[in-house]
Amino acid sequence: MDRLQGIFPPIPTPFSTSGEIDRPGLTKNLAWWNRYALAGIVVLGSNGEAVHLDRREKLALIELVRSETPEDRLILAGTGLLSTKESIRLTREATNAGADIALVLPPFFYRSQMTRDALVSHYTQIADASPVPILLYNMPANTGVDLDASLIVELSHHERIVGVKDSSGNLAKLAEIGGSAAPGFRLLAGSAGFLLPALAAGAVGGVCALANVAPSVCLEICQRFLAGDLEEAIARQRQIVRVNAAVTRGWGIPALKAAMELVGLVGSLPRPPLRPLPAEQVAELREILVEAGILEGKR
Amino acid sequence: MDRLQGIFPPIPTPFSTSGEIDRPGLTKNLAWWNRYALAGIVVLGSNGEAVHLDRREKLALIELVRSETPEDRLILAGTGLLSTKESIRLTREATNAGADIALVLPPFFYRSQMTRDALVSHYTQIADASPVPILLYNMPANTGVDLDASLIVELSHHERIVGVKDSSGNLAKLAEIGGSAAPGFRLLAGSAGFLLPALAAGAVGGVCALANVAPSVCLEICQRFLAGDLEEAIARQRQIVRVNAAVTRGWGIPALKAAMELVGLVGSLPRPPLRPLPAEQVAELREILVEAGILEGKR
Amino acid sequence: MDRLQGIFPPIPTPFSTSGEIDRPGLTKNLAWWNRYALAGIVVLGSNGEAVHLDRREKLALIELVRSETPEDRLILAGTGLLSTKESIRLTREATNAGADIALVLPPFFYRSQMTRDALVSHYTQIADASPVPILLYNMPANTGVDLDASLIVELSHHERIVGVKDSSGNLAKLAEIGGSAAPGFRLLAGSAGFLLPALAAGAVGGVCALANVAPSVCLEICQRFLAGDLEEAIARQRQIVRVNAAVTRGWGIPALKAAMELVGLVGSLPRPPLRPLPAEQVAELREILVEAGILEGKR
Amino acid sequence: MDRLQGIFPPIPTPFSTSGEIDRPGLTKNLAWWNRYALAGIVVLGSNGEAVHLDRREKLALIELVRSETPEDRLILAGTGLLSTKESIRLTREATNAGADIALVLPPFFYRSQMTRDALVSHYTQIADASPVPILLYNMPANTGVDLDASLIVELSHHERIVGVKDSSGNLAKLAEIGGSAAPGFRLLAGSAGFLLPALAAGAVGGVCALANVAPSVCLEICQRFLAGDLEEAIARQRQIVRVNAAVTRGWGIPALKAAMELVGLVGSLPRPPLRPLPAEQVAELREILVEAGILEGKR
Repeated sequence: MDRLQGIFPPIPTPFSTSGEIDRPGLTKNLAWWNRYALAGIVVLGSNGEAVHLDRREKLALIELVRSETPEDRLILAGTGLLSTKESIRLTREATNAGADIALVLPPFFYRSQMTRDALVSHYTQIADASPVPILLYNMPANTGVDLDASLIVELSHHERIVGVKDSSGNLAKLAEIGGSAAPGFRLLAGSAGFLLPALAAGAVGGVCALANVAPSVCLEICQRFLAGDLEEAIARQRQIVRVNAAVTRGWGIPALKAAMELVGLVGSLPRPPLRPLPAEQVAELREILVEAGILEGKR
Repeated sequence: MDRLQGIFPPIPTPFSTSGEIDRPGLTKNLAWWNRYALAGIVVLGSNGEAVHLDRREKLALIELVRSETPEDRLILAGTGLLSTKESIRLTREATNAGADIALVLPPFFYRSQMTRDALVSHYTQIADASPVPILLYNMPANTGVDLDASLIVELSHHERIVGVKDSSGNLAKLAEIGGSAAPGFRLLAGSAGFLLPALAAGAVGGVCALANVAPSVCLEICQRFLAGDLEEAIARQRQIVRVNAAVTRGWGIPALKAAMELVGLVGSLPRPPLRPLPAEQVAELREILVEAGILEGKR
Repeated sequence: MDRLQGIFPPIPTPFSTSGEIDRPGLTKNLAWWNRYALAGIVVLGSNGEAVHLDRREKLALIELVRSETPEDRLILAGTGLLSTKESIRLTREATNAGADIALVLPPFFYRSQMTRDALVSHYTQIADASPVPILLYNMPANTGVDLDASLIVELSHHERIVGVKDSSGNLAKLAEIGGSAAPGFRLLAGSAGFLLPALAAGAVGGVCALANVAPSVCLEICQRFLAGDLEEAIARQRQIVRVNAAVTRGWGIPALKAAMELVGLVGSLPRPPLRPLPAEQVAELREILVEAGILEGKR
Repeated sequence: MDRLQGIFPPIPTPFSTSGEIDRPGLTKNLAWWNRYALAGIVVLGSNGEAVHLDRREKLALIELVRSETPEDRLILAGTGLLSTKESIRLTREATNAGADIALVLPPFFYRSQMTRDALVSHYTQIADASPVPILLYNMPANTGVDLDASLIVELSHHERIVGVKDSSGNLAKLAEIGGSAAPGFRLLAGSAGFLLPALAAGAVGGVCALANVAPSVCLEICQRFLAGDLEEAIARQRQIVRVNAAVTRGWGIPALKAAMELVGLVGSLPRPPLRPLPAEQVAELREILVEAGILEGKR
């Protein structure tokens, strides 16, 4: 798992006008991402609208991404579903389809029942059954379930649970996990918005929606940090944080997809109930991208 | 829709020891519920572990419930999924399988994106496509999405959106909806815990988990209320509120299933990630049921 | 404490243009309230801007309210402060100034430290030291501390803790308290928005901001309920719930004060940081009051 | 304001057994803190139990701290109260008593009314009236009010609003503020738990409760960061994060005071409603301090 570090874009799923997965569009996007020194690709993450895809679509997506991505890059696939049994099944199928690592959200419907015991049991059963390593996926804003530090530390001792992608931005917690987890347990930032702070908390990289449209700046933050050039790293972090807020936090997937279109990638519309980004906000997004040097930088 | 009033138990799904749906067990339970003056049955609700069932299982369940329930009782089936398209598809299939009304939760993953516009569009598309009436289902504790009063009032004007089941317990909101919604729009309490207060806010009945094990007391509260016998109604409400808290709020589905076993019905274990109720809590639950006169009353 | 039932307006504090307490204005308001069959007055509640008043102002207010209110009506005074010692001191002083009952909010700054033990100890110390009965005051929206049912039940056994005013609107909890608390423990609704549902949960009245401007309709809801005339009670509840939302929930004290001006009472501006209600919203508020029959009804 | 950088302990207020401020105890503590290269002292912060002190006690505390602290170190005093007028008054008096900077919490009772406009007006009035610079104080866990990035950026343009102490740990927001605020606007971490990540987000130091008992490690994190020695800085951060969680987050002021006693300072008990740390947790705290090298390091 030495390759589980660096920057991973959690790729959106492009749809054709008829609403089907746009395979040529995705192939084109992948060719573009391949030109950057990304560590791999996250498919079927929150940004990939996994919850809007059926099982057949999910497996086809993994196969396509695997076939169009260099062998030395990791394919992480989201396989966490609402029941333990279905999560195990999808994890196995995703592995067969080419996933190197399974990224597993906690079950997010019966939240008040997601006690420590329930989560340990759920993740342990999946990890026991999985042919590939498991990356925990903490995203309380979407799931309403916040995996706490001691739970993550406990799970880190399972031989097939190799790390956590944390989207909560709670960096005291990330540092706490880093100091107590099993040796080699990997921490990944769940957003470019706190990429540099997460590196300073001991993370080894990030799964950053922003890397879909601006991989260079995410990669540069990592490089500057590793080189100890903090002043420049902070400057880059400040450069992107506002665009990141627009692309991810506030407006969500519709904005990410619109930003992809703006930089020349295939974004497309999201599936309902998600709504297209209103024209007015697309215009504002364009300005933000230009201001941040991302729209120019891409040309 | 005159029949959309009174008490509806949101039935749990019994599983065999091998984890499959226990059809004989469910048939036995239905025969017992049929002995009470219930207005119908809710299948595939939150208490039915709908999120742990696949499509085939869901439709088979509806068919079984329909075939084992008197024709004059309504079958309400939960059909709200995470995408609009899948929700429409399941609503149509559920109708073919025998559902009289579709009970539709809001999409609960991209919560911050579930704006007024997104929800109006989502529900309108489903209602436009549905062969049967739609009952809105507000359950913010599980979904993280709280349908607000003005949204519900707006949706009440769609000819196929006939009411709302509210599990939030916000009765000021319920009264506000009652005063502003389209004529004939029905309000149903989502829990026995506030059944009588909800009737006083204008509700016409309730979808009460407690009615699975104690239909009589829920029915009596309605009858006393309609007869203006408030003192006795309040006494009954007080009698059940503690048991209701134990059965539904605090311990959830595992407790409801354990309570069913205690009163002689087929409860079974929930599917993981839900966990069986610990033995210690089963004992405590038994005491609470006895104290409330439910365990005795059943014998 | 037989008189602790019925409707109590939690009166706002009128300020002169120089920002001082407007004693003639308050005297005028009290004379108007005295014309209705209210059970008493709540002074120094949340609507009274107690947190914007100093100790001297608070005691002067209690004295004025006591002197201008008929002897047979109860004066409830808010005396809960952030430290136990200061709460005890103010409770004693408020008694000397004429308060019949002390209404005590929980401490609301170190919320995560407000454990069961801390709250039992805090309230017990105050009740032990108080010359007058204590009414618990649960208002989680403002305090971030939600007094739970079992805590309230435990405190109900203190001889000087005689009831709870609940503003959370959690009526399952209210019914639970009603069923388990010491005999004679009184429940009061904290808002007209759920007055009728609260009566159906066993409450004996309410502390309703709306009663400042529309005492008649609040009183009528109680009377209709006691007479078993539920249809009419529900109609009244529906009539007021929208105006109540405007006056209290959404726009808060500035709207309540504006509504008082609209009905001919002395409202005045709140003290900063509260802001005056914008003119546009005053106009909207007027329409809501007219629509609900309150502005006409008052003339 | 060049001195507004580095580490500031937010000091607890020691009380004698009779409950009065323990002046000799505080003097002893200050002498100890003076031996470290701290940038100054925060008095009347959340950790100082400001909400349990009356005005006279507050001013006496500021005077004592000022007189026992070297002139070249800054005294920051918490002066934010629930009304604008009282906040202005205390800010002026605190200045006279020796405060160099006023640390101002937002009003935290009428939270839903703390709109953008209300907060801009509140802070602007205080800053206009203050003889000394203002440091914004964002602590949503205690106040329920989260000052958002654009509000802080707007306020940063007031000539007397010189920075923000953020205790939320939202470092994407901190970086966003850093990239958009007026030049020279200072960011300070509100906890040692995310001190290093905050420095990486552009903070210039921290107000760290942990610095009361372990100033060396906080100072060393800053020094290592400034020297570009990130590996060692991360190791230190990991070393302290668990003890910080125990001392501040989980157990609060009672634990901080107990930790002070353990390292030989005067901690004392907090004022009620805060409770003393139970003996069992004191023992656990001792172990955590020893494990982190803080208890040994102090001797």
